[in-house]
Amino acid sequence: MRQSKLFTKTLREASSDETASNAQLLIRGGFAYKNSAGIYTMLPLGWRVIQNIARIIREEMDAIGGQELYMPALVERRYLDATNRWDVEIGFEACGKADKKAAFALGWTHEEVVTEIASKYISSYKDMPFAAYQIQTKFRNEARAKSGLLRGREFLMKDLYSFHASQEDFERYYQAVRGAYEKIFTRCGLKAIYTVAAGGAFTAAHTHEFQVISPVGEDTIFICGSCAYAENSEIAKLASGAICPQCGGTVHEEKSIEVGNIFPLGVKYTEAFNVTYLDEKGSKHPVIMGSYGIGIGRVMATIVEVSHDDKGIRWPKNIAPFNVHMIELLPKDEAKRAAVRSAAETLYADLTRAGISVLYDEREGLSAGEKFADCDLIGIPVRLVISEKTIAQDSVEVKYRVKDSADLVKRADIVAHCAR
Amino acid sequence: MRQSKLFTKTLREASSDETASNAQLLIRGGFAYKNSAGIYTMLPLGWRVIQNIARIIREEMDAIGGQELYMPALVERRYLDATNRWDVEIGFEACGKADKKAAFALGWTHEEVVTEIASKYISSYKDMPFAAYQIQTKFRNEARAKSGLLRGREFLMKDLYSFHASQEDFERYYQAVRGAYEKIFTRCGLKAIYTVAAGGAFTAAHTHEFQVISPVGEDTIFICGSCAYAENSEIAKLASGAICPQCGGTVHEEKSIEVGNIFPLGVKYTEAFNVTYLDEKGSKHPVIMGSYGIGIGRVMATIVEVSHDDKGIRWPKNIAPFNVHMIELLPKDEAKRAAVRSAAETLYADLTRAGISVLYDEREGLSAGEKFADCDLIGIPVRLVISEKTIAQDSVEVKYRVKDSADLVKRADIVAHCAR
Repeated sequence: MRQSKLFTKTLREASSDETASNAQLLIRGGFAYKNSAGIYTMLPLGWRVIQNIARIIREEMDAIGGQELYMPALVERRYLDATNRWDVEIGFEACGKADKKAAFALGWTHEEVVTEIASKYISSYKDMPFAAYQIQTKFRNEARAKSGLLRGREFLMKDLYSFHASQEDFERYYQAVRGAYEKIFTRCGLKAIYTVAAGGAFTAAHTHEFQVISPVGEDTIFICGSCAYAENSEIAKLASGAICPQCGGTVHEEKSIEVGNIFPLGVKYTEAFNVTYLDEKGSKHPVIMGSYGIGIGRVMATIVEVSHDDKGIRWPKNIAPFNVHMIELLPKDEAKRAAVRSAAETLYADLTRAGISVLYDEREGLSAGEKFADCDLIGIPVRLVISEKTIAQDSVEVKYRVKDSADLVKRADIVAHCAR
Repeated sequence: MRQSKLFTKTLREASSDETASNAQLLIRGGFAYKNSAGIYTMLPLGWRVIQNIARIIREEMDAIGGQELYMPALVERRYLDATNRWDVEIGFEACGKADKKAAFALGWTHEEVVTEIASKYISSYKDMPFAAYQIQTKFRNEARAKSGLLRGREFLMKDLYSFHASQEDFERYYQAVRGAYEKIFTRCGLKAIYTVAAGGAFTAAHTHEFQVISPVGEDTIFICGSCAYAENSEIAKLASGAICPQCGGTVHEEKSIEVGNIFPLGVKYTEAFNVTYLDEKGSKHPVIMGSYGIGIGRVMATIVEVSHDDKGIRWPKNIAPFNVHMIELLPKDEAKRAAVRSAAETLYADLTRAGISVLYDEREGLSAGEKFADCDLIGIPVRLVISEKTIAQDSVEVKYRVKDSADLVKRADIVAHCAR
């Protein structure tokens, strides 16, 4: 894309009420726009990032047999009355402008809705297992909104729900989801720690969270220095402050951001919606469920928190809005200008043809310093510079966002170089 | 995809309160689930259809320079107070569960939000033109919900907004959008008629609708039999019932479904949000806007209305949830069963490898008649049957959903045949 066509521009300052680095950088870089407290528009650059995260999630959900659907945001009261969740304080409620009767919650999670749908299609053990997921907007009326995009009141979430005829089958799938989540976070450039958490109201079993260590995290986890064991502060409290990794290793405490969670739901929702199946002998049983969430906006914000410097964002390769940021520096001399422009246009076409997405900074009237500052703020992993100087050496300057030094690469080699 | 894994099944009947063919067929086929009046879940088959429509729309929007973003559903009251639209009866309002103060509308359109965003990035004539679009959930509290998915209270919509420094530039872009819309509807298999409509409150100019002729349409349009001119009943009423095509041709009246619309907005929103630009001489002017909508769920429902028979849906090629529906008919004899299964598995792998998406009906215990009935209801354009009989002739039976007769095609040729 030609940067002069991008309707957003970088800003020197985000709004003064944003203290979180993620919101500061995402707003300044033109990724997000703050509409209201905890409510953001994803601008074109941010939407490309979100789509990259969503693509990775879809691939890994499909790989474990997840079937994508799309449930409504308006959740009729009867759904939540069935599980006594209508009055949960985190919710928003909605009513028609004319009648003013609160008939709907805005879905903050969809266990009730998906369970009712499943009830229409499950009668026999042969109808399971299956898993359905969506990438859809969720609404939670969070009181504190100081964490920028880490904690929105409206945000995109991937929520997966699985249905099983036996506890063993559920546990097998739970591990499959754990594996898929580990792949997702790794592909997103995040080191997420599988953490034991308390079961909450639904189940006696533990649940699990995926936590990314960050000083701005609102959670606290305890990690064993020797083995892979980690648990959240809620669990540690239950165990009277003592964490007990089996390996006997020493434990340290970290602030962390919860980027995903997986829950055994047992039969709480299927009993509420009377979802049963007949086994091979014709006996009736309630269906066993799990639910599995990833906050997509939060993943984006977490990446920014753990991967930025004082100049801007440093997007991981798979997540970046473009593969390459190509900067053209035009000299004053007319003929030389034309040569640089022509070389840049040729390279832009070559890269695009090779399937490499390029943000091409062909804006006129900006200094090299201004262009470089924008480039560092936006944070695309690879910066290419074409100038009179690089052309004189039949080369392009290549600089990685995570490195301080730049190299010259021959023009003939640059497409192959970027395709790596 | 293996049909035994698809968690939905076809149903004999949709809910009795659904009278519209689109809802009947989409619910029976496992495309949609009705959660509440006018509120539907898109099940995996339906979501694939929606994604196909969305992909076509994205391609055509990108081709005319549209930049995709994603705005919030929660539209804070200040936005709508600025244009006196807070009390519009079509809306839903939302409040926090705890405070019960209606601080938000659920976006039924996003002119106000996108205009405020644009105001941050427009200062000079050089910052325009640009156009931004989203594919996002809209909320309208429609009283009458008898038209199934043609008129939802919650639905996916593509809304594009364009910003211009001059009326001429706006008009150029308006025609570009018209062209893009014509391509979109053609690719979706719809014959949409460009129809002159009244301007409404925003502008003295006419607006335009894209109307698909259907007896279940809620609109009435007047079409000239000789030239391409069409206008809606509102315009005809303004002209005292007389339609005046310049060609002098005779006019007939049709019921129709509005699948898209394009609006000149003039400066209504930019004045409300004080969005101005400086021209080349340094004089300040308000920015000129257009908005352009397509209801994605409505496009799906319209396709079903105009393309079905008494057996089920007939999806156009580009829109179908899968390219091919492959049915395996297993004989009783063990060895022959294995041969049919093996041939079907091989073909499934070959088709998939060739990039042809396949719904593979490998369900056991169903009769040929039951499988064919499901296939006709689901409506994928190409049906392949592999049976003892077809294998004996080293062939696969090919039947198109829109034809009554079937043909045998040699197994060696079937992938190429389906790729056409």
